[in-house]
Amino acid sequence: MNTPKSGPSPIISIIMGSDSDLPVMRQAADILLEFDLPFEISIVSAHRTPQRMFDFARQAHLRGIQVIIAGAGGAAHLPGMVASLTPLPVIGVPVKSSNSIDGWDSILSILQMPNGIPVATVALNAAKNAGILAARIIGSQQPEILERMIKYQSELEQAVLLKAEKMEREENK
Amino acid sequence: MNTPKSGPSPIISIIMGSDSDLPVMRQAADILLEFDLPFEISIVSAHRTPQRMFDFARQAHLRGIQVIIAGAGGAAHLPGMVASLTPLPVIGVPVKSSNSIDGWDSILSILQMPNGIPVATVALNAAKNAGILAARIIGSQQPEILERMIKYQSELEQAVLLKAEKMEREENK
Amino acid sequence: MNTPKSGPSPIISIIMGSDSDLPVMRQAADILLEFDLPFEISIVSAHRTPQRMFDFARQAHLRGIQVIIAGAGGAAHLPGMVASLTPLPVIGVPVKSSNSIDGWDSILSILQMPNGIPVATVALNAAKNAGILAARIIGSQQPEILERMIKYQSELEQAVLLKAEKMEREENK
Amino acid sequence: MNTPKSGPSPIISIIMGSDSDLPVMRQAADILLEFDLPFEISIVSAHRTPQRMFDFARQAHLRGIQVIIAGAGGAAHLPGMVASLTPLPVIGVPVKSSNSIDGWDSILSILQMPNGIPVATVALNAAKNAGILAARIIGSQQPEILERMIKYQSELEQAVLLKAEKMEREENK
Amino acid sequence: MNTPKSGPSPIISIIMGSDSDLPVMRQAADILLEFDLPFEISIVSAHRTPQRMFDFARQAHLRGIQVIIAGAGGAAHLPGMVASLTPLPVIGVPVKSSNSIDGWDSILSILQMPNGIPVATVALNAAKNAGILAARIIGSQQPEILERMIKYQSELEQAVLLKAEKMEREENK
Amino acid sequence: MNTPKSGPSPIISIIMGSDSDLPVMRQAADILLEFDLPFEISIVSAHRTPQRMFDFARQAHLRGIQVIIAGAGGAAHLPGMVASLTPLPVIGVPVKSSNSIDGWDSILSILQMPNGIPVATVALNAAKNAGILAARIIGSQQPEILERMIKYQSELEQAVLLKAEKMEREENK
Amino acid sequence: MNTPKSGPSPIISIIMGSDSDLPVMRQAADILLEFDLPFEISIVSAHRTPQRMFDFARQAHLRGIQVIIAGAGGAAHLPGMVASLTPLPVIGVPVKSSNSIDGWDSILSILQMPNGIPVATVALNAAKNAGILAARIIGSQQPEILERMIKYQSELEQAVLLKAEKMEREENK
Amino acid sequence: MNTPKSGPSPIISIIMGSDSDLPVMRQAADILLEFDLPFEISIVSAHRTPQRMFDFARQAHLRGIQVIIAGAGGAAHLPGMVASLTPLPVIGVPVKSSNSIDGWDSILSILQMPNGIPVATVALNAAKNAGILAARIIGSQQPEILERMIKYQSELEQAVLLKAEKMEREENK
Repeated sequence: MNTPKSGPSPIISIIMGSDSDLPVMRQAADILLEFDLPFEISIVSAHRTPQRMFDFARQAHLRGIQVIIAGAGGAAHLPGMVASLTPLPVIGVPVKSSNSIDGWDSILSILQMPNGIPVATVALNAAKNAGILAARIIGSQQPEILERMIKYQSELEQAVLLKAEKMEREENK
Repeated sequence: MNTPKSGPSPIISIIMGSDSDLPVMRQAADILLEFDLPFEISIVSAHRTPQRMFDFARQAHLRGIQVIIAGAGGAAHLPGMVASLTPLPVIGVPVKSSNSIDGWDSILSILQMPNGIPVATVALNAAKNAGILAARIIGSQQPEILERMIKYQSELEQAVLLKAEKMEREENK
Repeated sequence: MNTPKSGPSPIISIIMGSDSDLPVMRQAADILLEFDLPFEISIVSAHRTPQRMFDFARQAHLRGIQVIIAGAGGAAHLPGMVASLTPLPVIGVPVKSSNSIDGWDSILSILQMPNGIPVATVALNAAKNAGILAARIIGSQQPEILERMIKYQSELEQAVLLKAEKMEREENK
Repeated sequence: MNTPKSGPSPIISIIMGSDSDLPVMRQAADILLEFDLPFEISIVSAHRTPQRMFDFARQAHLRGIQVIIAGAGGAAHLPGMVASLTPLPVIGVPVKSSNSIDGWDSILSILQMPNGIPVATVALNAAKNAGILAARIIGSQQPEILERMIKYQSELEQAVLLKAEKMEREENK
Repeated sequence: MNTPKSGPSPIISIIMGSDSDLPVMRQAADILLEFDLPFEISIVSAHRTPQRMFDFARQAHLRGIQVIIAGAGGAAHLPGMVASLTPLPVIGVPVKSSNSIDGWDSILSILQMPNGIPVATVALNAAKNAGILAARIIGSQQPEILERMIKYQSELEQAVLLKAEKMEREENK
Repeated sequence: MNTPKSGPSPIISIIMGSDSDLPVMRQAADILLEFDLPFEISIVSAHRTPQRMFDFARQAHLRGIQVIIAGAGGAAHLPGMVASLTPLPVIGVPVKSSNSIDGWDSILSILQMPNGIPVATVALNAAKNAGILAARIIGSQQPEILERMIKYQSELEQAVLLKAEKMEREENK
Repeated sequence: MNTPKSGPSPIISIIMGSDSDLPVMRQAADILLEFDLPFEISIVSAHRTPQRMFDFARQAHLRGIQVIIAGAGGAAHLPGMVASLTPLPVIGVPVKSSNSIDGWDSILSILQMPNGIPVATVALNAAKNAGILAARIIGSQQPEILERMIKYQSELEQAVLLKAEKMEREENK
Repeated sequence: MNTPKSGPSPIISIIMGSDSDLPVMRQAADILLEFDLPFEISIVSAHRTPQRMFDFARQAHLRGIQVIIAGAGGAAHLPGMVASLTPLPVIGVPVKSSNSIDGWDSILSILQMPNGIPVATVALNAAKNAGILAARIIGSQQPEILERMIKYQSELEQAVLLKAEKMEREENK
């Protein structure tokens, strides 16, 4: 995989089954940029490039990757298959693709993994949350990242408090 | 794979994700025996034995296999992953396993394959129908098997006609 | 049925319940053209032309048809009824029609066939996959078609690898 | 069809896809006995005896049948196919069979008929209600049967009033 | 209820819970016009005009009505409540209203009636089929209407045969 | 309605569609006893005793009733119809009856009321919570009952804290 | 919380998880204005401002609030968490937010509360009904508000009767 | 919280909403024992002990906890609320409790978290997988634990290969 040329080598790998998933999956990249965590991003298709998927999943931890984020739609086998080939934590993002049945197919294909091979599933299209979860995983053992997460949650809180104040001013007259 | 020692070499391969699927999947074997079509049967787990799955699927057509029947439950990736690795027709049997959500997870994981990689999905737990579908596939190009299918359907019809007659005798007095 | 006038006689028959299904079902035709497999295409409605459906299904194998692809929406009885009248393999395409309940009605009406009468069901609106499955069925016993399928899968893989390379170039800076 | 030998000739026909549906479907017969409406009962399988279904449905109105009650499970095509072949009102009873997906498959296969061919669908396993609906249909044009229906509803009411009185006596002390 | 001033008095009554259901429910009226069956149409809301519903349902059969068609959306109680108050056959049309959950709420509220009180449920938004079902109910005991139904089905068939011919001409070159 | 002979007159009325709902609905009574709130309990069937339902709902507030708890299964019209006939708050309890489709029918029939006529819906079979909600409604304007609710919640908390302590002792060795 | 500066102090509190819920939740405010019941409105997010939620819920009844209306989408924890922290009745409004799975997630997260902690759930997006339910709760113990509710229901009825008359005039010619 | 008295202090905390969840949740403990990872286990109820939940979640990372596993059924708010109060990764286990609607309520309440607050959701009742996921998270930054995971996966594979061999011996004769 062509990982970023400059800067620290990536510790999080974001993969998706198709380039049509990019608008959703880029949200994972965006939040990792915010947390200043080095990552790589690419396409790995379980069904169209099975050999590439094998190679990617078998080698990720050898390349220094610590967390894998995998997004896919429909009968979404990528997160689960990668989880079966790597010892790393895999975060699955169910993507609501065009012929999906309201997203149920992606959700159940990713979530309902058999005993032995977990996938950390997030909400439908929730690539942003996948990125945050990856940051929490890294932060669980790196105090500096943990601090950033505490700060991030506090900023979320402040933003809502401001909106609450605004609504109260405008609506409770 | 250890295929049957004696008799003609198998042209249909029945695989399942776990030995707990055997009570369901044996019904495919039983109907193939009825149609006198040589088959093999084994366990191939997408998630627990991914390498075996790769090797099996890549080589099946080289070993003379013509149709693959794959059964699995939950987030059932076996039929779809095998279909991505073989040029042969793959019949998927959604199995209602113990922690399945009423079978919806198996059905959607097998059925909703992306463009390019079809799986011929049959009803929940319908391994018998998977066997019959395999026989129809073989029969589509072998007149003798086609004849057996015609005969089989005629026998099904006769059996129902007898039951209908019995019910009419007993209930319409 | 008016089958194509020139060229080899069709071995695959694509039927649909209504002309409103044509935009979806034509994708089956397109992929069969790509595989250079002779086919015919028409409307056969289980509910509006039951006699035509009977005649079609009873005679298809006598006319040299080897695989039937049947698409229908709502309470989709066409694939299952045709399967009950022919010894050939029938591929069912659930079509998400206008008053369908998110496609669940078409899927369940086609998939959940009783023992004895299988329908090879593909994903919602997946007529393209129905065409590929038909090609795999033909290929299971014709080495030349099998070769084309292997080539097709390899091209799919190449196309994704190119897209992956492009995404890595553009996104991993 | 072997209809009852003695008594008036049947005006309601109760059919089912399989003899395993009899425990459910007999409830339609029981209530018709209560309403003293002549009926016949038998097995007609859309998938296993398609010719019999055709003949039955085409001729029912010529034999004096006025209403058809059809019960079936899974991908339940019997009520809809019969409705397409007869001009009579067809009442569909979704039966929750053993491999049904909680009954959703039967319900949707019977209910979601396309424009032009209605099936009067009742609740899951509600063969008793199918019988009552048949009686209402007959009663819509036969004052005597209408009177029986009014009396039946009044008796239902009385039975509940008695139970209500009993519960009030026992629970409101 | 203000029924039509001229012509024969109505034998079918079309009611709906809200005037927003009219675009759907008018399709029932249109098909009854085609069958030349006299009908009336109005709003009767179970929840907003319960007294009107009571009076309507209790008196319909006394006014010469033979079949009631009732459409409603969401928690659709109108068809079932009317069925509990009249001895006539009631046809229920689940309407997919704006805040409906994909129509499931309307369907289940109308279909799943308890034993004793059936509603003849048709497909989601299928008011046209409700009208045809009403015509079949009338026709079950009026040979002239039965003849019209046979003719209607034959015309449906002819229309599809023409479309089939056209598609074969255009697509099978 | 036969309300309790002695003690204060009831301010909460618990009704159910059928005596088969009593095992579930009695849990509402039990918790009201705990809160020492006077109540009555009886059967009122929307479909089998529509006149009784009308009379009950129209008069409840005139008899001193302040809250109505209504439980029903399947196409559960009782809570919504009562809500349309009374100005009082109506709490609906979806009951999972024998032929219910996993309770979805009861839930949607009670929950999805149109604008203008709310039903306060609680969880499937949650008659106990219906009773607690009734107590909260009374308590919203009666400080003494509010105090009891605060005490009740505190006792719930204490009970869980004891269980937590026990589990920690036994499991964390 | 900044409650309205002038007029009587609020007895109903409308809260929502996000300002994107305001278009839906304002309908609760509008109907309370109609009923002339003093209320406040603001944002309280269970997930982004948990401390604010705690403080709000613990103190609401001490500030004179009698009923809380809480709206939220997706995994909607606000209504249930507030209900666990207050002794007041809490009305939950499931909001169909952008990434919701057709609203099922909001409905089930709000409705299916465990024993001990009820939430009075209304239909999807039915903030108007939440407001009416709040008015009914207040009215259950305040005759003047009860009278307004009776008048409101009567006006609803009149409005439908007028529409019915209009439809009858226009459609039954 | 009473954490284990002896041995290393816990780095994983397993909590559940009720002691009735213990049979499911103990499977997380069992697998952590296998991986020799120190953990604690207790009850924390979002709805019955909200203060305890607050205190637990706010302090977990200060006590050295690195991963939280939270199981709950029905409207399962525990995992999401804890995730909103801690910067640590939270793994959610949907538990299929007695009055759950087939588990859908637990799954959606845990999975569908809003942007900003992820929960790593595993399959229904899959506490074992939650434990394995926790081990993977720890292992992502601890080579020794990563090695154990690789070994664990290899043992899973060996176990299946043995079963496959046995099935081939017994079934392919």
